[in-house]
Amino acid sequence: MQVNGTAYRTVWLDGSTVRMINQPLIPHRFEIIDLPTHRDTARAIKTMIVRGAGAIGASAAYGMAQVALEAPDDGFAPYIRAGAETMRKTRPTAQDLFYAVDAVLSAIDGARSPADAREAAVARAEELADENAAAGEAIGRIGAELLAPGARVLTHCNAGWLAFVDWGSAIAPVYAAKRQGKDPFVWVDETRPRSQGARLTAWELQGEGVRHAVIADNAAGYFMRRAEVDLVIVGTDRVAANGDVANKIGTYEKAVLAAANDIPFYVATPLSTIDMACPTGDDIPIEERDAHEVSHATGLAEDGEVRSVRLVHDAAHVRNPAFDVTPWHYVTGIITPKGIVSPDNLASLFD
Amino acid sequence: MQVNGTAYRTVWLDGSTVRMINQPLIPHRFEIIDLPTHRDTARAIKTMIVRGAGAIGASAAYGMAQVALEAPDDGFAPYIRAGAETMRKTRPTAQDLFYAVDAVLSAIDGARSPADAREAAVARAEELADENAAAGEAIGRIGAELLAPGARVLTHCNAGWLAFVDWGSAIAPVYAAKRQGKDPFVWVDETRPRSQGARLTAWELQGEGVRHAVIADNAAGYFMRRAEVDLVIVGTDRVAANGDVANKIGTYEKAVLAAANDIPFYVATPLSTIDMACPTGDDIPIEERDAHEVSHATGLAEDGEVRSVRLVHDAAHVRNPAFDVTPWHYVTGIITPKGIVSPDNLASLFD
Repeated sequence: MQVNGTAYRTVWLDGSTVRMINQPLIPHRFEIIDLPTHRDTARAIKTMIVRGAGAIGASAAYGMAQVALEAPDDGFAPYIRAGAETMRKTRPTAQDLFYAVDAVLSAIDGARSPADAREAAVARAEELADENAAAGEAIGRIGAELLAPGARVLTHCNAGWLAFVDWGSAIAPVYAAKRQGKDPFVWVDETRPRSQGARLTAWELQGEGVRHAVIADNAAGYFMRRAEVDLVIVGTDRVAANGDVANKIGTYEKAVLAAANDIPFYVATPLSTIDMACPTGDDIPIEERDAHEVSHATGLAEDGEVRSVRLVHDAAHVRNPAFDVTPWHYVTGIITPKGIVSPDNLASLFD
Repeated sequence: MQVNGTAYRTVWLDGSTVRMINQPLIPHRFEIIDLPTHRDTARAIKTMIVRGAGAIGASAAYGMAQVALEAPDDGFAPYIRAGAETMRKTRPTAQDLFYAVDAVLSAIDGARSPADAREAAVARAEELADENAAAGEAIGRIGAELLAPGARVLTHCNAGWLAFVDWGSAIAPVYAAKRQGKDPFVWVDETRPRSQGARLTAWELQGEGVRHAVIADNAAGYFMRRAEVDLVIVGTDRVAANGDVANKIGTYEKAVLAAANDIPFYVATPLSTIDMACPTGDDIPIEERDAHEVSHATGLAEDGEVRSVRLVHDAAHVRNPAFDVTPWHYVTGIITPKGIVSPDNLASLFD
């Protein structure tokens, strides 16, 4: 996607160096970080320089390619094993990460020599990144059919291209519709506590020239009730087999409000995020994150540095669930690279 | 209510000086501001050193008492008229302000001499402040009957004692229940964009020793769905004759979520906020405030100063409606000093 007129992916491999957009600085600064070794790449995943399921997966795949490129002919296999372990330990809950590490390991295992293995690892990593971008592009093409000219889409959090290698999930249909000349508009929930909507989604949309307005999460219902929202599209961290959807905290609120106002509510996702081994949303563990995210807000200070300010008194008690589950019956449809399906018909995607 | 073990009102008169809590510094610093003349008091209302309908009304009443105390015997009437004009111009939309100014003017007009008028103005201002505190106390006593021991109340914004002279509206039942030994718990929506929940409500509850947790506005639905919320109580800026309720942006979202989860949703208010001349919520104008409130967050910086940080990129578009309207059918009951009534039975309060 476009940044200041130049096309970028979220992460890519340049020789043996992984390069990625430094996401914690967005939207205040645009910086590319160079990660010369797999240990640098692992640290970038762990410290959330890169975030978003698809982007984490591709970064881990490239990190495994670096492991293969670094591994000496003498002691090749042990170096690969240790490198894979380092990558796996970065984000224990990110399913795409394990999938990517295993996929590159499998390419390495199938090679006849260290030289072949290095070539295979790089090729497989590039393939995984391309697949991720292609899934986003397909979601965009299919989802754009839901957008009439001038459609007003409400989204929550960031499921745009920064969360993937390119295109994204929830925002991909918006980008596709924009290129089709439909001139879509996006209501961007700021998405407290980490402000991914305000920081990342709004910045992405600006780069692609998409009309948008950032709103307090509290204002989404107001605009729905005034009939200024035509449809809601969100991403997801995990879809259970029954169609229940786990996503960023607040998604459930928007789903209930959409239903109360007869507004269609769509979830966009690649197939890899649908977990047919997980029966229902009740089986998805909900991470409770650091209180600091709620007690503070982070942004650009007057001195030009990115700083945090404390919102609450220093003895305040805080709770911070990071995700919620939206029951399947609030979901109008699930937009996938294989088409739009009803949440109670996920099995058809895997026939 | 208690601040560091001492009982305070939000605003009071000390001789001819108005003293009030400096609210923009809460919760980071507790300061009392001295306002020696009515012009100082007017400026404090205008710059929102004091906010909240009841607290603004009492401040304006005390400001009018200052006008009378300052007015020279020679030229008494013109000085009173000019002072009233100054007070009226501070916050053009605050109904309680006009009510208070008119009430003190009427006391002055009924006096036989400037000396009598000064005494009458001070007495009427004290009476208005006491009435406001008494209304909050009555709302508390009546509303506390809704709270079982250990009740978990969710509230939005700040309708506690800082918004009134004392007690408040939505939080008054919690304070009363606390004193009855019921040990209530409050879920505090942080209430973006101005964070009145995180800043003011949490600080008030801490001072009174009430158990609470500040949450992102996005998390209210999550805790409702987990059956961790027993009832919702909010304040209001205006109740229309049909029972529709205008209140801080996001209140409508909480009302819809409460209904979806079979949780009672109450609105607490003194009678002065019920506008029987306003037919429905559609007739209540909704103020759209400065984009800066959404694009930035304000809190305590590491250097000990209260500062703002920018959350969005500098070209981001922002919308910032400050209030929304909750349709009457989402309201379980309206808690008033005269009892709890159904939203479709407001007329009974004025029989």
